[in-house]
Amino acid sequence: MEINYSDITVIGFDADDTLWVNETYFRDTEEQFANLLEGFETKNKIDQELFKMEIKNLSLYGYGIKGFMLSMIESALDISNNKVSQATITKILNLGKAMLEHPVELLEGVREVLNTLSQNYRLIVLTKGDLLDQERKLEKSGLSTYFHHVEVLSDKKEENYQHLLSHLQIDVREFLMIGNSLKSDVLPLINIGAQAVHVPFHTTWQHEEVSIRQNEYEYLKINKLSDILKYLK
Amino acid sequence: MEINYSDITVIGFDADDTLWVNETYFRDTEEQFANLLEGFETKNKIDQELFKMEIKNLSLYGYGIKGFMLSMIESALDISNNKVSQATITKILNLGKAMLEHPVELLEGVREVLNTLSQNYRLIVLTKGDLLDQERKLEKSGLSTYFHHVEVLSDKKEENYQHLLSHLQIDVREFLMIGNSLKSDVLPLINIGAQAVHVPFHTTWQHEEVSIRQNEYEYLKINKLSDILKYLK
Repeated sequence: MEINYSDITVIGFDADDTLWVNETYFRDTEEQFANLLEGFETKNKIDQELFKMEIKNLSLYGYGIKGFMLSMIESALDISNNKVSQATITKILNLGKAMLEHPVELLEGVREVLNTLSQNYRLIVLTKGDLLDQERKLEKSGLSTYFHHVEVLSDKKEENYQHLLSHLQIDVREFLMIGNSLKSDVLPLINIGAQAVHVPFHTTWQHEEVSIRQNEYEYLKINKLSDILKYLK
Repeated sequence: MEINYSDITVIGFDADDTLWVNETYFRDTEEQFANLLEGFETKNKIDQELFKMEIKNLSLYGYGIKGFMLSMIESALDISNNKVSQATITKILNLGKAMLEHPVELLEGVREVLNTLSQNYRLIVLTKGDLLDQERKLEKSGLSTYFHHVEVLSDKKEENYQHLLSHLQIDVREFLMIGNSLKSDVLPLINIGAQAVHVPFHTTWQHEEVSIRQNEYEYLKINKLSDILKYLK
């Protein structure tokens, strides 16, 4: 595999779990959700049912915390056979609100990487989720100044990337995407002829997991974001 | 007042209640919500409490149906002093899902206006609400083909418009916005030096109401969208 980034002029960054912590809060909230409902089912079963509910509602609600809150409430009613207490539903609403209000925790090396790369590349943020929530996180992060453009997408499939690159008048050959999700940040980019770097986060949402045959795709995988500075300056 | 649109090259359209029906479904759902809870309070009080809850949560949830669903649930718990039944909460979730799945009803004359104006102007859609929901409505509407660009904004204040026009490299003097909300589609545009046309819809959400002194602002008010064709071809 040859790594050649000499044509790259624009770098796209995923945000959740690439620039800042995100999935960890979902896992923590799922844990608290299972604690609230463990009188009705095993924790393992509660986890599974909540995930199924999220997937069932995904096409209707899309990604993000508000849809997750609605799925938790529906799942609590479902799992408990309508016996979950009203006070527990209030607690579920409060778990979601706490997620929306959570401070932003930057991942290691993020500021240094953005500071270095912004001197020679045009940087953009490409994320999915609730529009307002993502804008708020970017503002809280103090990173806005490094980015030429921020785009919140309803999904991160090939056609979403193609549409955006065409709108921003970026040739696919000059575009490199960096993110933690193989499924959303890496594979669709390679499929449209752009390049991508994978920086795994320690936790991945089940829905973002994907299995690929070895050697089917060529991309650089690094262990932490700052490792990208070995390849791009 | 002089109407001079000779510098206009780009026309922005609001979507909800300008291109298609929206507020009507919120009013219908509020009515059904009040019916579900009328054992606990008068309908009038229920309406008022739900509105207060929406405003309280607006900075956290933003605009759109998912936030409205969460506020209905919280309000139901609140109004009933935690006595609302679990079955009623399920009904509230279903009211919201029905809104998300509602077919798109175009307002009168919309297709003719877009068809005519798209021949001489660059048309864009500027709307707020849930990203996925707005994208889905545009797709269902069959109107996508008329628009060069679609932007879902988290809010429609002066800075949101300024940022977008600058990103799209549109000079304010060549931009005209058309929409049903004085507060969101007309006044901020005039304040930044663009032009705006007001097409009132028969119902306005209380939060979008605004009082202005006569003669303080200059803009064209028309009674139905197709009237714009008297001024622009």
